[in-house]
Amino acid sequence: MKIDVCFSPALYPAYHDPEAIVVVVDIFRATTTMAAAFSNGVRSIRPVATVEEAQAYKEKGWLVGAERNVRRCDFADFGNSPFDYTPEKVAGKEIVFTTTNGTKAITIAQSAYRVVTGAFINLQAVADYCVGHKRNVVVLCSGWQDKVNIEDTLFGGALVDLLVNTGLYEKGSDSAVIAQDMWTTNKEDLLRYLAPTDHVARLKANHLDDSIPYCLTLSITDRVPELSIEEETLLLH
Amino acid sequence: MKIDVCFSPALYPAYHDPEAIVVVVDIFRATTTMAAAFSNGVRSIRPVATVEEAQAYKEKGWLVGAERNVRRCDFADFGNSPFDYTPEKVAGKEIVFTTTNGTKAITIAQSAYRVVTGAFINLQAVADYCVGHKRNVVVLCSGWQDKVNIEDTLFGGALVDLLVNTGLYEKGSDSAVIAQDMWTTNKEDLLRYLAPTDHVARLKANHLDDSIPYCLTLSITDRVPELSIEEETLLLH
Repeated sequence: MKIDVCFSPALYPAYHDPEAIVVVVDIFRATTTMAAAFSNGVRSIRPVATVEEAQAYKEKGWLVGAERNVRRCDFADFGNSPFDYTPEKVAGKEIVFTTTNGTKAITIAQSAYRVVTGAFINLQAVADYCVGHKRNVVVLCSGWQDKVNIEDTLFGGALVDLLVNTGLYEKGSDSAVIAQDMWTTNKEDLLRYLAPTDHVARLKANHLDDSIPYCLTLSITDRVPELSIEEETLLLH
Repeated sequence: MKIDVCFSPALYPAYHDPEAIVVVVDIFRATTTMAAAFSNGVRSIRPVATVEEAQAYKEKGWLVGAERNVRRCDFADFGNSPFDYTPEKVAGKEIVFTTTNGTKAITIAQSAYRVVTGAFINLQAVADYCVGHKRNVVVLCSGWQDKVNIEDTLFGGALVDLLVNTGLYEKGSDSAVIAQDMWTTNKEDLLRYLAPTDHVARLKANHLDDSIPYCLTLSITDRVPELSIEEETLLLH
């Protein structure tokens, strides 16, 4: 089986494999936050592409997480910080969620064999999920407005490394080689490696960098949010 | 000034900067071959996107280089090996040229402030050209059928490294960081680093790997092919 890493939603047509599991990743912070919310007992997350859709749900009485350009939208109950989604607030609840880049990637990948969301906090669980399904894997990095970013690529490299080391997977293309090299070179000090990146600068400028160490913690939850489509609506369980 | 690296033509809209110099790169082998041809005295190269266009020029009596999936097209005078374009064959001549990925990237970038082609064999000359024009720089990697490849990214990293070290440039985004890291980590042994890549495998399978060491030789020509548009036709000088 093969694992490949697609560095941006804009590249997805070149890496698309309808029979593969697609692992959508947005380390800072959508998919980290999703894994945290499920770990804290959320029942389902409905990813929507636009702020307008999220606002319409809010007006109908839903709990809504909404972020644009790293900041919480005014009307929303939650922003994009994993710390917003406490057990007290989310356990047993259904949530609507929209973020700048993460929900777009989920929408793009929806026709794959399976779509799950991955983050460092559920890395091992995602790897186990892939091995259990015995399928090719495409890691779809959310990037930033279609540009490549380091943190999502790095997660891709971590998953390549885990799956290749099972002996069951081989790297699908140069992208997987690049990502794995980046991971093996920098895994001992992720925080230092990511300090000069664009998104860390963006979070710091908005005083939202308190969650960065959490976003880089490995495998603290075994929940793997999985996409389903029910009555034409995307739903993560 | 900023230098950024666009890993694939499919990402170009996200990195597009109409005021920048775009350096199109296709190390194996289109832009290496172009630099070699100019070094050997070719007068101009007319890049065309399709085999059909190239064949039409051939029927009108032009000298034509044409490659698809690493192999020379039957009708063409030259393939995509830099060794095909000897001084005896090309000095003073005008040539039509189409390749799987390289000419597509040139076509995409044509509206930038300037478009030049870069390769390891003219690396320093390209860096000097950029500094001389005092402009932002976008390295546009040709990739392989829109997938990211290592060799073009590596060239991007080499140019980032040279320009940032002048003190005049800073890295435009995470892509530039990724490419520069790849270059600084592997520059001492490019041949070993590239041995397991997709395109080297592709060239070897077609017994076309004789030009690989040449393609990885640094700065042996000072020619920088530059794009112009004359009577709606693309032309490299």
